[in-house]
Amino acid sequence: MSRAITTDLVADLARGAAVLGTGGGGDPYIGGLLARQALAEHGPVPTVALADLPDDAFVALVAMMGAPTVMVEKLPGLAEVVAPVRAIERLHGRRVTHVLCAEVGGVNSTIPIAAAAALGLPLLDADGMGRAFPELQMIIPTLYGVTASPLGFADDKGNVGVLETVDNLWTERIARVACVEMGCSVMISGFAMSGAQAREALVDSSLSTCLRIGAAITQARRDNLDPVARVVDELGGRELFGGKVRDVQRATSAGFARGSARIEGEGRELELLFQNENLVALLDGEPVVTTPDLIIVLGEDTGEPITTEALRYGQRVRVVAAPADERWHSPAGIDLAGPRYFGYDLDPLRFDGRRSQP
Amino acid sequence: MSRAITTDLVADLARGAAVLGTGGGGDPYIGGLLARQALAEHGPVPTVALADLPDDAFVALVAMMGAPTVMVEKLPGLAEVVAPVRAIERLHGRRVTHVLCAEVGGVNSTIPIAAAAALGLPLLDADGMGRAFPELQMIIPTLYGVTASPLGFADDKGNVGVLETVDNLWTERIARVACVEMGCSVMISGFAMSGAQAREALVDSSLSTCLRIGAAITQARRDNLDPVARVVDELGGRELFGGKVRDVQRATSAGFARGSARIEGEGRELELLFQNENLVALLDGEPVVTTPDLIIVLGEDTGEPITTEALRYGQRVRVVAAPADERWHSPAGIDLAGPRYFGYDLDPLRFDGRRSQP
Repeated sequence: MSRAITTDLVADLARGAAVLGTGGGGDPYIGGLLARQALAEHGPVPTVALADLPDDAFVALVAMMGAPTVMVEKLPGLAEVVAPVRAIERLHGRRVTHVLCAEVGGVNSTIPIAAAAALGLPLLDADGMGRAFPELQMIIPTLYGVTASPLGFADDKGNVGVLETVDNLWTERIARVACVEMGCSVMISGFAMSGAQAREALVDSSLSTCLRIGAAITQARRDNLDPVARVVDELGGRELFGGKVRDVQRATSAGFARGSARIEGEGRELELLFQNENLVALLDGEPVVTTPDLIIVLGEDTGEPITTEALRYGQRVRVVAAPADERWHSPAGIDLAGPRYFGYDLDPLRFDGRRSQP
Repeated sequence: MSRAITTDLVADLARGAAVLGTGGGGDPYIGGLLARQALAEHGPVPTVALADLPDDAFVALVAMMGAPTVMVEKLPGLAEVVAPVRAIERLHGRRVTHVLCAEVGGVNSTIPIAAAAALGLPLLDADGMGRAFPELQMIIPTLYGVTASPLGFADDKGNVGVLETVDNLWTERIARVACVEMGCSVMISGFAMSGAQAREALVDSSLSTCLRIGAAITQARRDNLDPVARVVDELGGRELFGGKVRDVQRATSAGFARGSARIEGEGRELELLFQNENLVALLDGEPVVTTPDLIIVLGEDTGEPITTEALRYGQRVRVVAAPADERWHSPAGIDLAGPRYFGYDLDPLRFDGRRSQP
């Protein structure tokens, strides 16, 4: 992706991001609105490929932290987006040169566009996960020893904080309780790293991938082709299941949207377990795919990605599984974001049913 | 108090502080241990009278935040004491020149001694309340528009944070949840102010008062006089009640030790309601004294102050009421720390039974 992000690209980008977001990251439509607003006000946002990033660049992520159920009702303002970046810049003693997406997912792929526009900075064509995950330390840079600290956070009321913690799990723990107290949604900035570190520790070409997937869905609809099949192709994944949503259990607790959904089709049942993101798929009670691989719910005919908070009784959906960045399957990656971390007593299963580690 | 604080003064100072601490602020013996350790290591701590403070001094408080029930089991280390001060100095761009006690109370009168010793700074002969209160915004500087922000906080694990909030209540809210997550006890530093502001917004001569009260108790014991009567004299208060503790209800929730105690004597009953500190005294069900005035529980014969977490069934105690700094009785003071703020539907009553405001 060598071009700038303009308003006409936002819809495809947000849609593609919502596919990779595996149910988390908030409503792509809302996220798109925010990005469009910022682009209209500040002009196109230039993107920079990882390969073109200078070694002495100073990259930091900008993201929204909180329950997507709250995020979608409370768009951040400009001050809220800029404040956490300024807070960490003050501690680092230098200015951030490039904005990074923490994850791909509805809101958290488009918030950084708005942030980059507001800050007048280019956006990296990369992200920290290649998917979305619910906790702050669950990011590939953690596997490379990049610290979340100093982590800036800001709310819509004007409250700002900075944390410097002994590890990224502690950043998550303290920022999470602060986030809940501040209204279940804050803007954060952190994981600052050099250009050299960024090239090693990030997932390359994420924005390009989102845009490609989003455009493939749009094009398939236009050509009367099957958008879901196009997504499966683009991701190198497989279609797991198709059917009708017959039950959704959902609760926002401790800053997360946790729950499960049951989908019924041709006499079988697929159960999805989620915490912001879809984490486990069980077919007739047997696990078939787990985190860290991707479990994606799409509209049956439209291929429109459906976030966990938008899942509703009666929706006709198809569920796609796809491979995660291979680094998530390392022992340290599985410790960070495998099913056991989330409290599911299951061995990790890849999108194609193979065990994650032999 | 024109002299330095030396180890031989610590016992009386901590005891006097525990009297004014009205049940909160933690165990004075534990607080004394920490101060003695620091004094032995770093030498005496010079104190400075408010009147001698230069206008361009830069004063900040150092305190322990959390549930006293936890505080007494977890003494802070040197790094934990220094970290929050360094954190706010970085944001202010200047060094703190004098350490201030947030409140008078067991641990929070002696922690600043240790902090001053460790930081190599003088300690102000003053405090922010003239008593102890459970929440961070409940400090007379709030009435003068002094902001808690930036507020530094640090735990025993090495985690540090700084908050810049829109008001002091938000500092309390966010710091409190962080404190609970970090183990229910953190060291804080904030409310930085100039010498000129300090002279206006603080309670003068607090350390001297503590030392005088502590020494009066010690001397009365030595002379076989009644220590409780001496405390009443020194405070200009009155003895409310004497009897035997027959019931204590206590729970640590949301970072506070909340509860009540019933004391029985001569066929009557005094009930104390507390949240870290004693806040309301009811005689046979009728309110007789409330916050912001002081409600103090002392050992019947020894005059030893008894903190709310040390109250036990069967103790023989006497309860003393005494006037708070008059600024607490202003409308803004009552809003900040009157009985209704704490959820008691009562008009504020002074130590002598008069209404706080006509």
